[in-house]
Amino acid sequence: MDPVRVIADPRIVIGDGTAPRLPRTRSDHPMSDLETFLSRAAEILGAEHVIAYGDGDGYVDPYPLHTGRPPAAGVRPGSVEEVQAIVRLANETGTPLWTFSRGKNLGYGGSSPRLPEQVVVDLSRMNRIHEVDPELAYAVVEPGVTFFNLFDHIQENGLPLFVSVPALGWGSVLGNALDRGYGMSPYGDHVQQLCGLEVVLPDGSLMRTGMWALEDSPLSNIFKGGFGPNVDQLFTQSGLGIVVRAGIWLMPWPETFVSGDITVDRVEDLPELIDRIADLRRREVFQNNCLVGNVVRAAIMRGRRKDFYEGEGTIPDERVEEMKEEMGIGHWNARFALYGDAGMIRERLRIIEEAFDLPGFTVKSRVYEGRDGAPVSYDDIPEIDKTTMAGVPTLKPLETIGWYAEDGGHIDIAPLVPARGAEVLDFYSEVKELYTKHGFDLYIGYHVYARHLVHVTMIFFENGNEEQLARARALYSEVREAAARRGYTPYRGHIDNMDEIAAEFSFNDHAALRFQERLKDALDPNGILSPGKQGVWPARFRDER
Amino acid sequence: MDPVRVIADPRIVIGDGTAPRLPRTRSDHPMSDLETFLSRAAEILGAEHVIAYGDGDGYVDPYPLHTGRPPAAGVRPGSVEEVQAIVRLANETGTPLWTFSRGKNLGYGGSSPRLPEQVVVDLSRMNRIHEVDPELAYAVVEPGVTFFNLFDHIQENGLPLFVSVPALGWGSVLGNALDRGYGMSPYGDHVQQLCGLEVVLPDGSLMRTGMWALEDSPLSNIFKGGFGPNVDQLFTQSGLGIVVRAGIWLMPWPETFVSGDITVDRVEDLPELIDRIADLRRREVFQNNCLVGNVVRAAIMRGRRKDFYEGEGTIPDERVEEMKEEMGIGHWNARFALYGDAGMIRERLRIIEEAFDLPGFTVKSRVYEGRDGAPVSYDDIPEIDKTTMAGVPTLKPLETIGWYAEDGGHIDIAPLVPARGAEVLDFYSEVKELYTKHGFDLYIGYHVYARHLVHVTMIFFENGNEEQLARARALYSEVREAAARRGYTPYRGHIDNMDEIAAEFSFNDHAALRFQERLKDALDPNGILSPGKQGVWPARFRDER
Repeated sequence: MDPVRVIADPRIVIGDGTAPRLPRTRSDHPMSDLETFLSRAAEILGAEHVIAYGDGDGYVDPYPLHTGRPPAAGVRPGSVEEVQAIVRLANETGTPLWTFSRGKNLGYGGSSPRLPEQVVVDLSRMNRIHEVDPELAYAVVEPGVTFFNLFDHIQENGLPLFVSVPALGWGSVLGNALDRGYGMSPYGDHVQQLCGLEVVLPDGSLMRTGMWALEDSPLSNIFKGGFGPNVDQLFTQSGLGIVVRAGIWLMPWPETFVSGDITVDRVEDLPELIDRIADLRRREVFQNNCLVGNVVRAAIMRGRRKDFYEGEGTIPDERVEEMKEEMGIGHWNARFALYGDAGMIRERLRIIEEAFDLPGFTVKSRVYEGRDGAPVSYDDIPEIDKTTMAGVPTLKPLETIGWYAEDGGHIDIAPLVPARGAEVLDFYSEVKELYTKHGFDLYIGYHVYARHLVHVTMIFFENGNEEQLARARALYSEVREAAARRGYTPYRGHIDNMDEIAAEFSFNDHAALRFQERLKDALDPNGILSPGKQGVWPARFRDER
Repeated sequence: MDPVRVIADPRIVIGDGTAPRLPRTRSDHPMSDLETFLSRAAEILGAEHVIAYGDGDGYVDPYPLHTGRPPAAGVRPGSVEEVQAIVRLANETGTPLWTFSRGKNLGYGGSSPRLPEQVVVDLSRMNRIHEVDPELAYAVVEPGVTFFNLFDHIQENGLPLFVSVPALGWGSVLGNALDRGYGMSPYGDHVQQLCGLEVVLPDGSLMRTGMWALEDSPLSNIFKGGFGPNVDQLFTQSGLGIVVRAGIWLMPWPETFVSGDITVDRVEDLPELIDRIADLRRREVFQNNCLVGNVVRAAIMRGRRKDFYEGEGTIPDERVEEMKEEMGIGHWNARFALYGDAGMIRERLRIIEEAFDLPGFTVKSRVYEGRDGAPVSYDDIPEIDKTTMAGVPTLKPLETIGWYAEDGGHIDIAPLVPARGAEVLDFYSEVKELYTKHGFDLYIGYHVYARHLVHVTMIFFENGNEEQLARARALYSEVREAAARRGYTPYRGHIDNMDEIAAEFSFNDHAALRFQERLKDALDPNGILSPGKQGVWPARFRDER
């Protein structure tokens, strides 16, 4: 499958140097002076980096569950100075921006902005890797650097570092961390690996955070925290600034790598599985977040629906049972990996095997060591285990969107759930009923951390199939409601649902959101940077909620 | 030694119910309406919780390197509602506050505020432990809860949890984390263990952060991050709010505990020691921050100076060499600990022994296991290893202040240094020259993390010995200057040096400090909460810098 065919890649649709086409406007807002913005942006960036779209072109959600929402236009700055100039210009012309690094955000609205009058700021040209320190194990990168780019750089230079990658490798290393995305390795909580940010503030000025604010200090990207209130995390899931460069910690390259699987034969043994995984993660026997999938997930990763089942509605339990047997897997299938010294790995495997020495549970693992005393390398790992857990970026999961139809899409529902087995099974049962009621196949992938898990379910659909889309919308809402009733909320949000999710944070008349908006108004009085991101609106647009 | 004799404990000097004495005022500020504040505070809190002091009483630095700086008065709220009422009252009367949890802050100015007109808000009465979850391993505590309190609670209830404790156990669990203090265990980076804050904002309103802002959610204290910009870290080293309750993650109780020592015979082998420790910390073989001390530190931990040397000036190298032999230690002495499964610990020890199998290096360790298959307990660990690395809170290091004289004090200099051995030795050599020049004995304690170390040196002195204090001040300044020249800055600051340290963060005309002050003015327009903390001044007091 060619990913470019699936996702409109904005890089292939650039301006032609003529005056940009004016986008549609909205009468209920004082119109920003977009024409002036675009012509002056062309002077700053060159006309080829100013992109005008009509409805349906470029920068839109490739998987629209609702109507598409194209931006007013796009700009593609190539340097910090150009970002600063664009932000200052936006303040002068009152132009609301919507920033992204690579603009993937699949299943969460893609690169679509929240409001049609927003001009997207596409940072993909800022793709320099400024520094990689192989000893203290960190990199300093720009937002356009993808996981593929960083991985390739490290491999080409033979550096003893391991890149933590998420499900799809074409996203931005920085963008993923800033949006609190995660990867599959011990450093998989990406936002926690950020150390030192360079940020263009809403007034166009430049700030460095933490120790990077010292001039010429070797501490810039190795200590989290500067002096006084730590502001770094303000720029996560945020429109309070545009991060143009940041330090990100990397794991030292491990001597040995293990790919392991735990299969569980019975659905009702989920609580034991979750409780024991989380316990071993808290005890740091497991080093990464195990990924627990169900039978439907395994099928979706392997083929199209028609290869497994042709009936209407959700795949019946009896057929799921057969599919399990055909694929030779469990009802629950946990994938884990281990990293480091071979002796420690042997002990980890012993503990894991003891913990899951239960009826109906099976543990299998493949250990990869280097040759002649050298650490393992990718030459020692066969294709089947060159996975995201092994730090290899990929686009393979894109194929899953073809589950129902060639022209498919998906939306993700990823509430956080406490890592308590009984609670997880209880919620699973409710979600399963909802998927059955609305006739969708239930994809489950639990990312199990020490104290919580990310309860990823996806809804796959055929783009443009209105009957199915209507059911998908209803299912999405009901799963969200079921989660909210239990106090489970998503860790990130689809652009269409940001206000609704933000509203759940209701303690003391939404004190947290009011606080975020107070910061927004103080730092961005003109409401320029990504208004509405995660439900935080500047005063100027607050009636959009 | 009785700690109460050494440190004036504010709890033993409380008001008597009569009208509070007015403190000294300063003519260069518009006087806040302190009399009204104190009489209304007495109505809110009860007169016994409103404390007036003259110079020299109570809440002052017990180790003054400069002149003492008593507060205008003190208030001791006992509940969230009382904190809110005090903050609202302070806004009405224009009274600047200075908040602390337990007010220890030894070597950094104690509980002294930055300005004499500040009224201290002493949170020590708020000492409830609201929740301890033994499964998901976290506690929810108020700021008055000390490390002793939390340790005792967990021991008394037989909970399988391990408390990460700093050098002295009488400090606040929350206060230590919020000021970015650290402990000696795998969870020793305490600020990273905070999860969910309840905060009284500068206007007296109450906010909960992260998932705690959801009503009745089980996620409150188990996932870092809510939705949108994460504001938690804004309240670290901060006067942007008063944290009245927070979640803090705890380590599961380990099955086995090891106390280990690496001794290094030659001074010049420091780089090998540091580089290998940091490498093994990055590889998560070492689980906690190793503490590397020199010979003088070992002597200071064991006795008084007169027991080792009676001459003037810094102890000569020849005598240090003898002391090393007498104590049977190395020039460098690294203490580490290991935690968890006995098999994994054996492998860790093997790797450590291999890494330090170098001429002049010795590794020794004592392994403590539980009996009859049970996990280790404190009953299995002898007194000598019931250390902070074993999670046991203590006051023993207080004795070190008697090094020069019965009535002693100390000031700490703790710049951060990259964990690169050659750099550390180079800086050590310069610091040693400065201590020699000013005639002080050089105490070194390096806390070695994965990418940085905290380069703790202390200057011990006799309280009131003006000749010695003058030398101490000169030495302090010169060490700070030497560090600053290399781009090393302290992770926290003595109240007397906060402006100077903050000024080092000078990138782009102090953009980071200007940003912090912009937040301060937006959130605390009356400049009520801890003005001047970490050099962040509200507009009202900005000329104090």
